[in-house]
Amino acid sequence: MTQTLHQPERGFANEEFEQRFELVQNKMREQQLAAILLTTEHDINYYTGYLTQFWQSPTRPWYLVLPSEGLPIAVIPTIGVECMAKGWMSDIRHWSSPHPTDDGISLLTEALVEAVTRAASNSGFKHIGISAGKESHMRMPLCDLDQIKANLKKHDNRVDFVDATHIMRRQRMVKSPKEIEKLRYVAQTVSSVFERLFEFVHPGMSDSEIFRAFKIQCLTEGVDDVAYLVGGADQGGYNDIISPAGARILRDGDVLILDTGCTFDGYYCDFDRNYGFGKVDKSALDAYEAVWEATEQGFLATKPGNTPAHLFHAMNNVLQKAGALGDSVGRYGHGLGLQLTEPPSNTPWDNEVFEVGTVMTLEPGMEFAPGKLMVHEENIVITENGAEYLSRRALPQLPIYS
Amino acid sequence: MTQTLHQPERGFANEEFEQRFELVQNKMREQQLAAILLTTEHDINYYTGYLTQFWQSPTRPWYLVLPSEGLPIAVIPTIGVECMAKGWMSDIRHWSSPHPTDDGISLLTEALVEAVTRAASNSGFKHIGISAGKESHMRMPLCDLDQIKANLKKHDNRVDFVDATHIMRRQRMVKSPKEIEKLRYVAQTVSSVFERLFEFVHPGMSDSEIFRAFKIQCLTEGVDDVAYLVGGADQGGYNDIISPAGARILRDGDVLILDTGCTFDGYYCDFDRNYGFGKVDKSALDAYEAVWEATEQGFLATKPGNTPAHLFHAMNNVLQKAGALGDSVGRYGHGLGLQLTEPPSNTPWDNEVFEVGTVMTLEPGMEFAPGKLMVHEENIVITENGAEYLSRRALPQLPIYS
Repeated sequence: MTQTLHQPERGFANEEFEQRFELVQNKMREQQLAAILLTTEHDINYYTGYLTQFWQSPTRPWYLVLPSEGLPIAVIPTIGVECMAKGWMSDIRHWSSPHPTDDGISLLTEALVEAVTRAASNSGFKHIGISAGKESHMRMPLCDLDQIKANLKKHDNRVDFVDATHIMRRQRMVKSPKEIEKLRYVAQTVSSVFERLFEFVHPGMSDSEIFRAFKIQCLTEGVDDVAYLVGGADQGGYNDIISPAGARILRDGDVLILDTGCTFDGYYCDFDRNYGFGKVDKSALDAYEAVWEATEQGFLATKPGNTPAHLFHAMNNVLQKAGALGDSVGRYGHGLGLQLTEPPSNTPWDNEVFEVGTVMTLEPGMEFAPGKLMVHEENIVITENGAEYLSRRALPQLPIYS
Repeated sequence: MTQTLHQPERGFANEEFEQRFELVQNKMREQQLAAILLTTEHDINYYTGYLTQFWQSPTRPWYLVLPSEGLPIAVIPTIGVECMAKGWMSDIRHWSSPHPTDDGISLLTEALVEAVTRAASNSGFKHIGISAGKESHMRMPLCDLDQIKANLKKHDNRVDFVDATHIMRRQRMVKSPKEIEKLRYVAQTVSSVFERLFEFVHPGMSDSEIFRAFKIQCLTEGVDDVAYLVGGADQGGYNDIISPAGARILRDGDVLILDTGCTFDGYYCDFDRNYGFGKVDKSALDAYEAVWEATEQGFLATKPGNTPAHLFHAMNNVLQKAGALGDSVGRYGHGLGLQLTEPPSNTPWDNEVFEVGTVMTLEPGMEFAPGKLMVHEENIVITENGAEYLSRRALPQLPIYS
């Protein structure tokens, strides 16, 4: 019953941010970094609690300096000061942005020089970590990045930027109990909506109408946003799982997939459900059972100390036996948290070691006939004893509307 | 009446993409570029029609090569091929992503070398344009950008990346009639919701409840997504316009602002509305009239050949006379289209020249008392005769719930 779902408190206590910061400071010292410079929405939110949809506007850059000694420094447009100050951050420097010639660059240089000077006089560390590695990007103009590099070199020729992607990646991978509470809430809420889908979706509706009805249900049940909804339907199976909704009309013989990332307090669920309508081709029913069973085996293979590669093989064994022709997704699930997809990836080569608190999706998929896909997905958290579902488990057979 | 709103067709005819591409090719030749490399959602959507929420997943890079001669080349993860192929693109190269060692880099190098070789043998152009300028970023790993640069240098030492931000910025600023139709539809749809706000918002509701009710109304009326909703309420005026909704209860004496970016077929509206509840302080009523009148003057100052600076001064004159203490937003409006905010900005220094088809927001705001803001916003398109509203004009006095 959805009524009994307890909505977690929003935000986090200051202690949680202090712990996150202490952990990243330890890592910086281990790796001999003077500081880390962050520019993206989710990294900055993670260390400051700065949660706002204002990131949708690409105009202004936002910076966070995590020094290896001392407190974090936010260097942000004035429009964000009030919101940033609501959290645990005390050192907030700001400028009126957009600015014609200096969009935060002098302020940011100053903050970085401070951090480097302090670190150098204590530990001798001079390098500044940035996100330059796989699956990352820097959300700032390249011309400004070059300018800051030049400014720092002028200050001390030995200061340089180095890649520190792995530090944030590893830290954010392991969720705290409070984070898991939010993730569980949103996954459970969306589970309820999926379980009642036949109450508001029926043959004769267009994809657009189905998407709209689903979004309204999710909002009504208590998610903050339906940030991501893809899917589609076709006769006996679908072929495209990332297109937006169109005008196609749902009809007898269709298999429908909806895959959604809804949020609560900035935290995502990410899972899908499949539905059959009327008389569905047997190959689709069989494929559904195969991906469901693959999820089961992935779940059983999950425990602290294991890796995404273990999960991949556990799921892939089932899919291969079921006659999978291929898979266009490139992996069987991924990390989940402040972003719809986070590292690591369930691939044969990802050897990131699971810890208690790692949150993952299990997402086996296969082409079961030429041009026909079946993808299934659940959300799990890794506990001392193995995996635990955050989403409520899908039915073992394709649910059929009749 | 919302019932009479005609929903525009989704997508664009191939001719529209051909025209966009022809225009950017002309610019490339003018600026002696061999090609342009694009990496972000909205640039790639603009030139290909590749519209999907899958961009929410940060894992995979997506590349588009616009050669100065020949057709555009998409270099994308296999998961996107089906969706990309629905549009006008014919040259789609793909790889299974994520990949442990080569996430599209060889394929992209190959495509760029092809483009450069063709251009060099015809025009002699060798440089590749990227987005490295103000208000831009590259959505790809910096390590991969370095790798590609090295690969290209190995091919021909004279090939280099140069900033081409201004080309896309200028082109996307001027909207086609079909784009304007979509923008008008979403702005009109949201206008209807705003006009009926007192039917579903009343004192006693929490900010969260108000946001949820507003989102459901927008979806019900026909927007695809409520991609952006910020706002808040406080006694006699608000102080923070970008925070997410909280638990605060709406009450007598409050001024409420909701500022939303809803989408239809990928195109945004972006405007706000203010509402008073019960007995509202007179200074807020006056401030509302001032920002409304500032909008009026900005509207009248808008015509082809004018610039954002003209609009800024027209609006600022009104606000200064009304006793504005300051403004934390940093500008009085901006461009609008595939993104919530696009260039240019209504600031004293932005001298981008308006053309017929430029779509802007007018967004005068001021601090009318310490810690009390009033911000107003409308969406307009520039026609031969001046400006035309896309949103339906707000009332000249603060609407009061009583």
